[in-house]
Amino acid sequence: MNPGAQHPDDPASQPLRSDAERNRERIIAAARRVFARDGLNASMASVAREAGVGIATIFRRFPTKEELVAAVFADRMDSYADAVAVALDDPDPWHGFVGYIETACAMQAADYGFADVLTMTFPTAKAMEERRNEAYEGMVELIDRAKATGRLREDFDPSDLVLIHMANAGVINATGDAAPDAWRRVVALMIQSFEAPARGPLPASPEHAALYKAMLRASPAGPAAAEPDRSN
Amino acid sequence: MNPGAQHPDDPASQPLRSDAERNRERIIAAARRVFARDGLNASMASVAREAGVGIATIFRRFPTKEELVAAVFADRMDSYADAVAVALDDPDPWHGFVGYIETACAMQAADYGFADVLTMTFPTAKAMEERRNEAYEGMVELIDRAKATGRLREDFDPSDLVLIHMANAGVINATGDAAPDAWRRVVALMIQSFEAPARGPLPASPEHAALYKAMLRASPAGPAAAEPDRSN
Repeated sequence: MNPGAQHPDDPASQPLRSDAERNRERIIAAARRVFARDGLNASMASVAREAGVGIATIFRRFPTKEELVAAVFADRMDSYADAVAVALDDPDPWHGFVGYIETACAMQAADYGFADVLTMTFPTAKAMEERRNEAYEGMVELIDRAKATGRLREDFDPSDLVLIHMANAGVINATGDAAPDAWRRVVALMIQSFEAPARGPLPASPEHAALYKAMLRASPAGPAAAEPDRSN
Repeated sequence: MNPGAQHPDDPASQPLRSDAERNRERIIAAARRVFARDGLNASMASVAREAGVGIATIFRRFPTKEELVAAVFADRMDSYADAVAVALDDPDPWHGFVGYIETACAMQAADYGFADVLTMTFPTAKAMEERRNEAYEGMVELIDRAKATGRLREDFDPSDLVLIHMANAGVINATGDAAPDAWRRVVALMIQSFEAPARGPLPASPEHAALYKAMLRASPAGPAAAEPDRSN
């Protein structure tokens, strides 16, 4: 029995609060499975199918895909922010820095959806973006400390972390279950390339505003426009 | 006028050979634009819309998306194989090796569709796979020569080239037009990580068979099953 699907378009029909809550949890659990399997490009329609509810029910609970994404990944974003805190606690900043990259990239490999979340930004998902900003501030601090030890190249830029997550997502998406550890080799190579002394100059980092735009562009707010008709 | 669209389901209606040829060219040109813009996950239906023909017409000319992909990217695969030949002609194998990576990655950046082609394999597209194998043989030779000069790390594996193309595709897909040069920084970092002496050991390369499976898995032969109904 599914109260939301029973009365999909009748706002006067108010299911019991506990039913509403159960429905919400059911949608989040289904979305978690679908995003983990298919990535964030999965449609709201496929989440509805997985949850066994009508698509109208999903859109009533989560008017945008961004809100659904934020609900699904709230706990992972917490773990991600925790990983930064752990790294900051490491008495060896370079060791903490490397450990953080390995942990965050492993979180991407464990979940195709989260692999994308780390390369996107979701302006309307305030709580999630606050956690991300908190993590970002911590990373900037960690990078400064790692540079001070002389182990991290001087021209390393915080935006390089976003780029490594984009690269890692590419490897993870392309190798999938067929070669599930391939990303480890790429990440190890990237980490070695971060080590001081630098072996040569690098092309400039993308402008902050440009990278932010890219992270917006990749977010599901865009593709949502191409969603199937919401009315069924 | 479009003979294919006029008689979409009537095999007795044989358009003139030149019409058939024009239709084929029109579909290839449309697919080139759609793949360049949206990547290989673009549906046959969106290629049909771009070409202004019925989807049945496309499937009559190209029974599988793999065949359409091969037709669209035949010339790019030729350029890719040529880039290997140029690298082999370089009297400095390390310089040739670096130049090849930069050229191939720039080809990915110039075309989202080709970015994916370099991380996939299309077993039924014989001519294309022959070109790719030819390029691969050349690369193995180039890698051996670059190692012999002492500039390329000894544990570099030919499969690392596939991994860098997967990583690069991830950066290109995520940054797009917003930060169109971001990939250059990632590729420069990767190249520095390839330089001898190695800064540390690496996780093992994926098994050849596993990586091959991944390249198959990522190919449009899979997603084609999820294509919209062919009958419209």
